[in-house]
Amino acid sequence: MGRLLAVVLGAAAGGGFPQWNCGCPACRLAWAHDPRVKPRTQASIAISTDARAWVLLNASPDLREQIAANPVLQPLSERRDSPITAVVLTGAEIDQIAGLLHLRERQPFSIFATTAVLGALDANPIFSVLARGVVAREPIPIGESFFAAPGLAVEFFAVPGKQPLYLEGDDPELAIETDVNVGVEICADELRLAYCPGAAAMTPALRQRLADADVVLFDGTLFTDDEMIRCGVGKKAGRRMGHMPIDGPDGTLAALSDIRARRILVHINNTNPILIAGSPERQKVEAAGWEIAEDGLRIEL
Amino acid sequence: MGRLLAVVLGAAAGGGFPQWNCGCPACRLAWAHDPRVKPRTQASIAISTDARAWVLLNASPDLREQIAANPVLQPLSERRDSPITAVVLTGAEIDQIAGLLHLRERQPFSIFATTAVLGALDANPIFSVLARGVVAREPIPIGESFFAAPGLAVEFFAVPGKQPLYLEGDDPELAIETDVNVGVEICADELRLAYCPGAAAMTPALRQRLADADVVLFDGTLFTDDEMIRCGVGKKAGRRMGHMPIDGPDGTLAALSDIRARRILVHINNTNPILIAGSPERQKVEAAGWEIAEDGLRIEL
Repeated sequence: MGRLLAVVLGAAAGGGFPQWNCGCPACRLAWAHDPRVKPRTQASIAISTDARAWVLLNASPDLREQIAANPVLQPLSERRDSPITAVVLTGAEIDQIAGLLHLRERQPFSIFATTAVLGALDANPIFSVLARGVVAREPIPIGESFFAAPGLAVEFFAVPGKQPLYLEGDDPELAIETDVNVGVEICADELRLAYCPGAAAMTPALRQRLADADVVLFDGTLFTDDEMIRCGVGKKAGRRMGHMPIDGPDGTLAALSDIRARRILVHINNTNPILIAGSPERQKVEAAGWEIAEDGLRIEL
Repeated sequence: MGRLLAVVLGAAAGGGFPQWNCGCPACRLAWAHDPRVKPRTQASIAISTDARAWVLLNASPDLREQIAANPVLQPLSERRDSPITAVVLTGAEIDQIAGLLHLRERQPFSIFATTAVLGALDANPIFSVLARGVVAREPIPIGESFFAAPGLAVEFFAVPGKQPLYLEGDDPELAIETDVNVGVEICADELRLAYCPGAAAMTPALRQRLADADVVLFDGTLFTDDEMIRCGVGKKAGRRMGHMPIDGPDGTLAALSDIRARRILVHINNTNPILIAGSPERQKVEAAGWEIAEDGLRIEL
């Protein structure tokens, strides 16, 4: 029987928690070091079958700090090396790709992503600091299984989402399935973990994919669709940003109430009241059987 | 009489200390939490005249962590805002510009840089996450004074250097003065601070500029030109990377032995033995009257 290890390197949505320029109620608690909240870096998961070689799911802008906080990701030899052997990208948002810039210095590893996500890297010459002769860029179609490391099979699956903000036009299409926002299924023998940090809506196919997993790490960005507007820190509803709410009749709790998997909310926005211990929103989420990811959470299957 | 405050947000060269994939002697001490070394994030300085509004010199990839470590840079209001009002860029290396990606979320501030440095941003659509209607990009010629904040006059000056790695061709020109690598002089009334994190060689004009300052924060990347080769972690000499050595007959100690300014080494590479307390190299540097920057160092004029 196989083994599948996952470490949550970062549990926050884009900007992290607290966010550099935010004074919303949860961020104010975090800036004040209130014990009811724990700071979180931007979302990324490390996966391994043997605790020696690690595959990252997305490369967060906070990756250097995340490596410092997680000794399993630190070099072992007296020269240059790293236990990080691959990075799997589920999209091309800043919080999913900017951390690649931390992985410079001519260290070999592989980047696995869809053609659209690799295209976003290709369009930015700054990523050529990862020289193509050193860091392989491997295009992977949705629905095609590949090995990101020995014994670690990976498959991208379609998820309703949106274009990255810096690529979208004036009138972006919302909640469409494209290969610039995908979920990822990790299989080690019969063990399955699904990671889906951004979903604008639930579909029958997405629900079935999550229902087949042992562990689901799912989009926990916003508790309610109008949360950022009510906090006075944004003008966009959650779905407009590519994220379905946790609460409500068509929210995540309702959509995934009866799947068997261990369910964990991740990619949590700084405005989300589930970040605050004791809040009614956190109580509701926990009563529904969900865990709330925090940095350093270890999952062993 | 004016007042000039500076905080070293990060004192390390590109990659930081320790560097994610490095097992050189100093990094091994840092990974082991040896008390002889202090970790350092990538080089950036915050400047202010009133301790309320702050101007950053370069935007390091570690900027989010640096804001978390420095309460003066954290938001004060209940909505979105920031005491960071401007970023002045002295080059377009990853460790000078990638931190701009942390400053997204539609927060107004100004970027001041040469045309060549702004051109490197323009060539990468990922930086359009800083919408031009929100974040101004101000081109500034070398030698022309401008105000980065009220009472804070800034001037770029020429420094021998090289192109950023991700822009250079197969046969890069070395130690040439271009506007893609500059130094910066900060003046508040008669107080002067010079920041020069990358210099491939000393010139009479550069030396005079530094001699006229009250405080100099200068390129402390490498102690010796062949340091990375001898550590077994690189194939390039220091000057090839745009950095003159600290030691030796044409090194920084010799070139700036008799200027009156308070002298501080910054942008220190992870291989540099001055990072290790008690090392002969650190003793030599300190005996020559230099300080060694560390994260959080405050300078008040």
